[in-house]
This record gives sequence, structure tokens and C-alpha cells, in this order.
Amino acid sequence: MHMDTRPDSLAAALAPKSVAIIGASDNPDKVGGRPVDYLRRFGYAGNIYPVNPTRSVVQGLPCYPDVASLPEAPDLAIVAVAGAAVATTVRACAARGVRTAIILSSGFGETGEDGLQQQAELAQVAARAGMRLVGPNSQGLANFSNGAVANFSTMFTQLAPQDGPVAIVSQSGATSAALYTLLRERGVGVRYVLATGNEADTTVSELAQVVTEDPAIKLIVLYMESLQDPEVLAAAAAQARRKGIPIVMLKAGRSASGMAAAQSHTGALVNEDGVVDAFLHRHAIWRVADPASIVNVAELYLKGMRSLGRGLVVVSNSGSSCVMCADMADELGLQLGELASSTRERIKEALASFATCSNPIDLTTALLGNSGALGGVLRALGEDPAGDLYLISLPVAGAGYDLERLAEDTAAFEAATGKTVVVTATLASALAPFRRRGLVTFASERQAMLALDQASRHFALMHAAPPAAPDGEGIVLPEGAAPFLSEADSLAVATSAGLPVAAYWVCHDVDQALAAWRQLGGAVAVKACSEALPHKSEYGLVFLNANSEDAVRSAFESCRDGMATLGVPWGGVIVARMERGRREFAIGGKTDPVFGPVIMVSDGGKYIEAMPDFCLLVPPFDAAEVRTALSRLRVAPLFAGVRGEAPMDVTALCDAVVAVAAVMQRSGGEIASIDLNPVMVRSEGEGVVIVDALIERQPHAHSVSVSGSAHATKTVEEMKS
Amino acid sequence: MHMDTRPDSLAAALAPKSVAIIGASDNPDKVGGRPVDYLRRFGYAGNIYPVNPTRSVVQGLPCYPDVASLPEAPDLAIVAVAGAAVATTVRACAARGVRTAIILSSGFGETGEDGLQQQAELAQVAARAGMRLVGPNSQGLANFSNGAVANFSTMFTQLAPQDGPVAIVSQSGATSAALYTLLRERGVGVRYVLATGNEADTTVSELAQVVTEDPAIKLIVLYMESLQDPEVLAAAAAQARRKGIPIVMLKAGRSASGMAAAQSHTGALVNEDGVVDAFLHRHAIWRVADPASIVNVAELYLKGMRSLGRGLVVVSNSGSSCVMCADMADELGLQLGELASSTRERIKEALASFATCSNPIDLTTALLGNSGALGGVLRALGEDPAGDLYLISLPVAGAGYDLERLAEDTAAFEAATGKTVVVTATLASALAPFRRRGLVTFASERQAMLALDQASRHFALMHAAPPAAPDGEGIVLPEGAAPFLSEADSLAVATSAGLPVAAYWVCHDVDQALAAWRQLGGAVAVKACSEALPHKSEYGLVFLNANSEDAVRSAFESCRDGMATLGVPWGGVIVARMERGRREFAIGGKTDPVFGPVIMVSDGGKYIEAMPDFCLLVPPFDAAEVRTALSRLRVAPLFAGVRGEAPMDVTALCDAVVAVAAVMQRSGGEIASIDLNPVMVRSEGEGVVIVDALIERQPHAHSVSVSGSAHATKTVEEMKS
Repeated sequence: MHMDTRPDSLAAALAPKSVAIIGASDNPDKVGGRPVDYLRRFGYAGNIYPVNPTRSVVQGLPCYPDVASLPEAPDLAIVAVAGAAVATTVRACAARGVRTAIILSSGFGETGEDGLQQQAELAQVAARAGMRLVGPNSQGLANFSNGAVANFSTMFTQLAPQDGPVAIVSQSGATSAALYTLLRERGVGVRYVLATGNEADTTVSELAQVVTEDPAIKLIVLYMESLQDPEVLAAAAAQARRKGIPIVMLKAGRSASGMAAAQSHTGALVNEDGVVDAFLHRHAIWRVADPASIVNVAELYLKGMRSLGRGLVVVSNSGSSCVMCADMADELGLQLGELASSTRERIKEALASFATCSNPIDLTTALLGNSGALGGVLRALGEDPAGDLYLISLPVAGAGYDLERLAEDTAAFEAATGKTVVVTATLASALAPFRRRGLVTFASERQAMLALDQASRHFALMHAAPPAAPDGEGIVLPEGAAPFLSEADSLAVATSAGLPVAAYWVCHDVDQALAAWRQLGGAVAVKACSEALPHKSEYGLVFLNANSEDAVRSAFESCRDGMATLGVPWGGVIVARMERGRREFAIGGKTDPVFGPVIMVSDGGKYIEAMPDFCLLVPPFDAAEVRTALSRLRVAPLFAGVRGEAPMDVTALCDAVVAVAAVMQRSGGEIASIDLNPVMVRSEGEGVVIVDALIERQPHAHSVSVSGSAHATKTVEEMKS
Repeated sequence: MHMDTRPDSLAAALAPKSVAIIGASDNPDKVGGRPVDYLRRFGYAGNIYPVNPTRSVVQGLPCYPDVASLPEAPDLAIVAVAGAAVATTVRACAARGVRTAIILSSGFGETGEDGLQQQAELAQVAARAGMRLVGPNSQGLANFSNGAVANFSTMFTQLAPQDGPVAIVSQSGATSAALYTLLRERGVGVRYVLATGNEADTTVSELAQVVTEDPAIKLIVLYMESLQDPEVLAAAAAQARRKGIPIVMLKAGRSASGMAAAQSHTGALVNEDGVVDAFLHRHAIWRVADPASIVNVAELYLKGMRSLGRGLVVVSNSGSSCVMCADMADELGLQLGELASSTRERIKEALASFATCSNPIDLTTALLGNSGALGGVLRALGEDPAGDLYLISLPVAGAGYDLERLAEDTAAFEAATGKTVVVTATLASALAPFRRRGLVTFASERQAMLALDQASRHFALMHAAPPAAPDGEGIVLPEGAAPFLSEADSLAVATSAGLPVAAYWVCHDVDQALAAWRQLGGAVAVKACSEALPHKSEYGLVFLNANSEDAVRSAFESCRDGMATLGVPWGGVIVARMERGRREFAIGGKTDPVFGPVIMVSDGGKYIEAMPDFCLLVPPFDAAEVRTALSRLRVAPLFAGVRGEAPMDVTALCDAVVAVAAVMQRSGGEIASIDLNPVMVRSEGEGVVIVDALIERQPHAHSVSVSGSAHATKTVEEMKS
């Protein structure tokens, strides 16, 4: 809904030629006074037009009585009036040809249904005039490269701004200000602080897209409580990825309580959290749980990483730091690789004889007597392949330590090798010489390790080639008005998409059923088939292991009679080969109302819901990505075969998952959900086989099925049953 | 080994009447000069005796040529000499009647086997003379209440000490200094900074015991890499629990890499990490992974908590903070309880009309216009039962906010209600008015939530009644020299302890086996029984589901012949009723070489090792504790019955676990391990039944069993197989 028009207006809102402040105040601490003050204080060079019918001068600037009398149509109008005056002002702005209006006023969507309705009307007024709206309930936009600070955050007075390579785009003004504060306290320059508020029109995704175009931006930080335009965010992420700009997102509303709080906060729709995770992963956006996880990694992001490896070398003057870092490396999956024997020899030379020369490297007290020891060790390490990431930890420092020399040698190592180097010390003063030389420092080893882990994973994710959309023609579902396809139709769609389905016949009389049994050769499953029977086993209309004429006949008749009794449309009786596998899995797909196709792979069996073990993937993806996702399942250790078993055919499972994603994508949104359960996984080389399938049509205007379930979109959790 | 003698000497080492510094230096920045400087600088009032044969005066004090010529036997001697002089000095101290000697010198256990041997000899010399040793490779002891700072940490010059209620006891000097620094930077007073180094004699546990006796101490912080005297730590923990002093422990060497690094750091033995967890939990010691998790919670610990409830109320002037806190509450299991409707009405009165009055409470912009709004909300909350813990989050603050008034009202609320209140803000300056009034503050909501979670869990753990040791007579194992008991003997021990064992006969001929089958009535298992066959199924000598004369006869003969072929001692053939259950579990016990009896309960089945799902418990414990531990298993959701199943008999499972602990304790250490697997758990009221049992004797001087496994102590992982 936001992709069509006027992105240029938002770009212009960040670099406006003129700004009007409607409801301008002479008091620079009031909402209507702050932007006037900030625009002048932070060097905005365009025209500033205060608007206030009760004043002729505001903060020394000539003031206009109304929007209509402005000398030009401003690129940006800041609406700082209250109550009913907001609507009047928005109409006036639209009429005057304002390109973008920021509504700072609150009292809209965050107060309930009425407010939501009011802000929707404002958005309509704006849309009809080709004007963009930011807010309502927005803290405003701020661009510190040109002083266009149309924002009333108190924090800009508390902590001096400095233009820099970071863009903050946030639904919440408070969180945008908190992120600004944390980054500035760390000395990081911030160019954009943009808050969208209730998002009646402009979204975080759209502004993310705009700032991605700024060549000075090297890191984008997003805060959202609700994401409704994933396609816009995906486009921004794709562009950022091409330009090597990391995007980090704090998406709140993760849990039930958080979603409830988010809904009462902005009135926006909640997202299913697991799907959010999968979507962000697909687009190489790194998700964090709190502001510190963004700020902590910012400097590492800004420095960039030349190597994507996970090899870690730790050098410390404390043995206990070595131990704690080793613990954390294992916890995070960073590899403390073994050093080459030549490296160890060179380290031994650089240090006193009794020092440990394995990784982590304990310098013991060498630095007290020999300030060159660190440099010597680093030079020895420079040629060792074990290290992609270097952590230098100096928990003990102060009198007796030549920190300038240590910092000099560390900076020289970084410059010579291009490796990623971080330094930690307990005392902030001990870090100062390192920071002066441009090294990335942390107050604790844990923070440093978490930052190295996040940055290396994120850069690797950004560098992975984005997979292509699937080939293949569109899939057309059989005609019909029922919410579900019958099992036969569902199996036929799966078969046509190349999925390995258990051999089956659709039989319409006993003779056909007996012929099917003889042809299939061995035990069969006999199942009632009707588009109105998506949950046939609940009606006792599934008969397993039939392996005699009598058994097949009796099962067929029971299915036929049962369907007649229930009065469901006749779709025949399925006679299918009984299949065995090493382990049952389930593959599902659904069309999320916000994110579109989402694919689930789950360990199967009776307790699939009680003891969940599944992963979600947003297409497009390839088999290799499925394999990586599967490797994180609890059941993963069984894939290789344990206790003398052969390995499982994970390749076939991955191929099936990719094929299900293709079915979802090729159906053009016509499939609401697909549920393949069980999928029997066999030993390597023997493939997988799908034993049951159920496809749900995207609802248009359907009736209720015989099972009584309304044709509402199912959640992924329901999907797994 | 450390419980017997001379604890008084260690108490005296923290409050010595006189201190000698051997290797005293005139340079206050040298290891031998620091303690002289510190003792005087920090107001030590006892006698200071520098010892150095090359000087007559050290830092203005008369200097003695050697230990023998000291005018009195000092309570404490600081050994700051190097190499071979250490041993000479220790002997001289022992001869002179020194009560405790701290060896600051390094080059001992941390360098390898030779060093370990040398420090063991020093410990022997000391022990013979009744002298305690601290170190070697120790940073020393510091007591800031009396200036007895026999410690060479640089950090005391970087950050001024202040006596206070915290004791730091650490194996590592660097970590003790880092903890000191972090606490002092937060403004927390620290009395003790004690570092034990290589622990040739004095351990962290012993010093923990000493500081527990100090009535001024309100929080004890420990760092260890290796714990070898759990009984001493348990005694310290019991005393601390009685006095309400929380103990927080950073035990490094959690992972494989961490253990390897720890071993190269101090040469000490590694602990099995899961057992460490269970032991610390048993003794209400809270384990953390990094120094920040200690320091972050210190002020909350020092303030104490009147309520142990988990009800959380969040009040913030940022809607996004409300959302993020709600997410974290769910993540941490803190309950955002619903407010009473009367409370909500009163809050509505205190705030502008459109504010959300549910918990978390979004103040929106009320504080800007109405400084009394926070106080009004808090007064409304004071009578609501939802809140045990209060988080007041002010991410936005600065000009326009009357922080003094907000702090005043918050402090009044805390004083009036005695509730636990914490305050967060992004700007440190915004927190100052709250800190001045004694409120606990945090720089981020996440830190605050983590602290509330940890403190409330830890205080609840400390307040739980410690369970009593089990009743019952000692259990005597049957005579024998083999490492394992036969299955029959193992089952007999289990039966005698009241454990529910499947009905079985031990048969010595075919007729007995047939009689057993008839008597048991139904399918039976037929199993070879020999003390030399702990892994009988690996030799194909277990036959399940025998339910005919032929089958039982054939199985008996196969067992008899198989045992003859293997040449193992004849223990008969077990004929046991085939038992069914709802799910297989396993219960194990082992005698850990450091910690003694440890009990494991695990979900069972074929993949018990590939997909581990178990908990460890250190006795004594009661059934309620087992139930709590079991509730954390992945399999726990099945206990209540899912998909129409009846609940499982978890009560019987818990009773069985308690009985296994009693067997281990009542055997007086004679059982190296016990393995009950499978334990079939049935529906509620139907109990559990043990199908197989294997008891391993504590090794004295045994041979190797026929299965080839040496009689080494098994790990818990091995135990589960």
C-alpha cells in the first residue's frame, strides 16, 4: 500500500528546502517551540516558517497566521496543534501543497478505535492531495547532516548531536531517543533520528528505504512493534545488502504480554513472532532483543569485517579471563583454534618461559616487565590461520603498564593484517589509548564476545547469496468452493509438484479397492476421501494395515457408509501403500496475512505439539538453507545415524521442503495452507515419502466444513496438528 | 582436608596484629613494595615489619634482615621473593611461628607438574608447623575495615577503596580486582578482596567461611575455576543462609574449552559442570556466568527483598518501554499481573484520560504537565496485590521533567510499602536524584529485569527449607570383588530400598524358568545374570516377550550356553514379567569424586544420549524438589497427559528418585553408580516399575570385567547409556 507513490516526498522531508511549524511556540521547551529552536541551533539553512495566529514573531522569526498565507508551499510541515485542530491543519497543509506533514500531536490510534478511525481519515485527506503524513503521535524526523531537525526530543539538548554514519528509524520516539543517547554516549555519530509514531501513512520500512540511499550511512537501526509492509522492508534490505549496510532491528511484541502491550500502545496489528524471525533472517536483517545489543555492536559494524570466519584468538594478561573467554567461546560457537607449532614457538620467544602458549594465550605478568610482549605475541599470531577475530583482554591495567605502547602495537597489528581486533579492560581509562587509535573497545569480555559473535554471524548472513525465486509454472487448484481440497486432490497437487507421495488409488467401488490392494502388493491404508473431511481420522474413517480381501472390503465399506452417514460429498476411497520410514516429520506451508508464504519443517509423531521441535523458513530458499535450519532442530543428532543406524536421507527431506515452498509460491497465494504429515524419512538414498496431505484454499466466500471448523486462516501451531 | 585445623589463623590473617613483608621494596609500585605502601595508606594500625637483607629502611620503616630476627612472630607474613627463595622463606616463616603466610610469588602449579610438586612441598612444610598458606601465585588478602591490605592489586590505586558490606573471594587475583573495580565504580563499598591463587593450602571455600562470620558482610561474591572442598563451601553456605547473606558464584571452566584453559591456568582438577550446578543449587548459591551478572544485582541484594513473589508492575513514560518490558517479563517468567479495577480507576484519576491503565502502565506524556502523576499512580498501586516488584522506567527525561519530585514520590512509595522498587533511565544524570534517595537504579530496563529476576529467585531459594538427610539403616552391598553387582543382586538392593522392581525369578534350571513363566502369568523377559555381565544385551543374552514353553526353554538355554561360552561366573537366569508403561525414564546415581552422591533423572528410550533430556540433583532433596526439577524437562508437558491421555504417575517417579538418593547416601559411598533403566512410568495411581538395574561398586582394587570396560568412575553421560 505504500510502494506506489511519492517516495521522493519522504526523501525531501529529510532535506527540505523549507519547513513550516504549525502551532509554533516562542518557548523552546514546548513541543511547538522545540523544532523552531532545533532547526536554528543545528544549522538548518532553508526557510523556516512559524505559523501561529496569535503571534507575529516566534523565537525571532516572522510568524504566519495560517498555512494558506505561507509565502511558498513548504516541503515539510510540522503539525504541533492539539485536538480537532489537527484535522483542520492537515487539510490546510494538503490544500497548500505541502509535500510531507509530520503530526507530533497524540490522541489518535493509541487511544482506541475512534482514534484509529480519525487517523485513517487524516491519511485519506493526505493521500488525495499527494501529501505524505508522518505520525500522528510522532516525535518527528531529524537529520543532523543538514540541521533539518523537525523533532521535539529532549535528548538532543541533553547530549550534543554529531553527524555520523548511523540512521535510527523507530516507531517509538522514546526508543529512538534512547538509541540516540546510547550511541552518542559511546561517541558514535548519528545522522538520522526518525520516529514514525502511529504510522497512519509513513512506516519505518519506508524511511529505512530512504536512508539506505544515503551513501554516508553505514549502519541502520530499526525499532518496530508492528510490521505491516514487509515487501517495503525487504526492498530496503535488498538495497542495504547490495551496499554492504547492516540493518539491525529491535522488533518488540515478541511474547504474549509484549503483543498485548504493543496493541494497547499503538493499536497496530500484531505479528506472529516466529514468522518475523524467519522473515528477518531471509532478508539478512539481524534481530536483537534490547537496545544494548544494538549499541554494543555498532562500532564493530561501522569498522566492518574483512573475514567472515569464526576463528577466535584470545590474548589476556589474566588467566581467569582466558578461562571465562573460553567458556563463552564454546557457548557462542566461536572456535578457539589450535595455533601452529611455529606460532607457539614464536610466542614462547616473545614471553617468559613458563607462559601458556596455547589459545587462549595467557600473558601472565609479562606485560609488567616487558611492554613489547603484546606486540611480539601479535606479530607471532599475524601469520597463524587460527584467527579471524582477536580479543585482547586486559582486566588488570594501571600503574606499571605502558598502555600507549600496548595500544600502538595493537593498532599496528590491526593495520598490518586487516583482522578484526577488539580490546577489553575493566577500567575505562585503560581503554582510552586504544580508542584514540581507532580500535574497537568494550567494558567487558562478555560484551566483546557477544559483539564479535553477532557481527560475524550477521556479516556472513549478509554475504550469503540471496536465493532465486523458484522456476515452474503456476499451480492451479482444482475448481471448487470448499475450504479444503480432498486428500486425493491434495495428493495430486503434491505429486504434480514432484513431491514423493505414497502410491495410492482413488477407488469408487469394492472391486477397485481390491484391485488396488493386489496391485500395490502388501498392506494398505484405506481412507475416506472428501473435500468436506479434512480431519477424517477423527471420524474413524482411516483403516491402517489392511492386508486381506476381507479387511480391504470391510474398510472400503466402512468408509463408504461413514461418508454417507455424515452426508459429505463423495470423493472416493483412497487405497494407499503402507509406508515405513526411520522417523516421521511434518512439512507445512501457510500464507501469512502479512508475510505471505511461510514454510515449517517439524519433527513428527504424536507429541508434535506438546514437545515442539520445528523451524520456519520464508521463501525463496534453497536446500542448503533448509539443511542449516534443520541442523538446529533438537532431532538433528539423529540425522547422521546413532547407535549403529544408517544416516537418514536429509537431502531428500530438504528437497521436499524446497518443493513445498515452490508449491506455495507457484500457487499465487491461492493456497492458504498445506500440511504434509507424516513425511516418512528413510535411510540415505531411500528418500522420503509423504503419507497424507491436506491443502486449504485461500478463503474467498466459503461455507463451513462438516468438521465444524470455520475457514479462518490457521496459525502455524494449528498447522502442525 | 581443610576442615580440621587452624581456621582461626585465617580469621587472624584478615585482622592481623602484625604483618611482615619478606622481600619488601622501597618502590611502592613493585610487588614487594605495594603491601607496605597499602598497609600504611589504608590505615593499618598494627605492626609492619619489612624484611630485606639489603636494606635497613623500607618506605621509612625499619627493615629486618631476615624472618628470624623479627621482634615478634607475626600473624601474617607476605612472601614477595622469587624462585628458590620462596621455599627458604616459607621454612623460615614456619620456624618463626608465623600464623599465615601469603605467597605472592608465581611460577608454581600454573607452570606444570614440577610446580605442582613444589607447592605441595610448601604446603607440607606449613602444615607441619601449624602455619596456613595462601597461594602461591596469590594476589593477596585485603580488608578495608582495618587497613590490613596484604595485597598487590594495582586497582586499589586506580579506584579508591571504601569499606562496605561486600566480600570478594576469588581464586584469581585479576578477577577479584575486576569485581572490586566494577562494584566500586557503581559506588558499592567493598570490605574484603581476597585472592587464593594456586590454593596449595587455603581455598576460596575456607575464606568464604571466614567472611561469613563477619556481621558487617551482607553479600559474598566468589570466583572459582576448580572446587575441591565442597563440604567446606556447603558449611559456609549453610551459615550464610542462616544469616540471610546471599552468596553469588562465578564458577568458570563451564565448557570443554574453559576447562582446558582452567587446567593450564592453575593446574587444578576440573569439575563436571552439571554437577557443579546441582551442588550450588542445593546450597542456595547463585551461579552466574560473568562478573556483570554479579555487579548488576549487588545493590538489590544489599537492599534485600521483603516479598519473594514474582508479580511485576511496570510504570513508564514510554509505551515502547512497556512493550519491551512485557516481552522480557514473559521471557524471564515474571508475572505482569492484572490490576484490580479499583486500582485502575485510581490510576485513571491520576493520569490524563486516554492513558492505558493496564499493567505495564504507560504514563504517556503525563509527567511533562503533571509532576505529581507518578506519585499518584504509585499511591494507587500501593494497595494492589499484583505487585511484588516495581520497575519504574523513564527512558525519556531531561528538561521539562521534575526529577526531584519523581524521585521523592518513588522513595516515599518504597518507604511506605516496603516493596522492591527499581528505577531505570537512559541518562545517568536522570538517575542521580533517585540514587541520592537510596533507590536502586539501572542504566537499562534489561539490566533491571535481569536483576529483579535473579534476586527474587535467589532469595526464594535461600528461604526454602533445606531438606533433611534420609532415614534408614546403612545399605551393605553383597560381598564380592567384581566391579559390578549382577542384575539379581542389583535388583535385590533396589527392592530392599523399597523401589518398585518388576516381578522376577532367578532361575538355575529350565524347570525353574518354566515355573517362573507360569507363575508370572504372561510374557516374560529372560536374561543372563552374572556379575561379570553388566552389558548383557550387547552379547545377545536378553530375550524379550517369551510367552510359550518353547520360547522360555530356548531363551534359558541360550543364556546358559552363552554364559558358558563367555566363561563368566554363573548368577542364574532372570525370568521377569514383561512390563508396560506410558513412557520410559531412567534414574541414575553416582558418587562424584568431588561432590559425592549425585542423582540423575532422564527421559528414556533409544535416543537418551543423542537427544539428552535430564536433570541432576545433589541429595538430600525431597519429592517436591524432584517435581520442580522434572518440570524443567522437555518431556514435562506429557506428564499432565496430552491428546486425551491420562496424567502420568509423576508422584511415583519422584518417590523413586528420592529412594535412589537414599540408597546412594545409605550405602556410605560404597556404590560408585546405580543405573535404573528403563523405569516405566504409568498412568496416575499405577506407579512406576523398574525393569533393569545395575549397581557398580566403589573401586578398591578390582579387575576388569568381561565386557572389557575398566572399572573407572563413569561420567553422568556414560551413566545414561
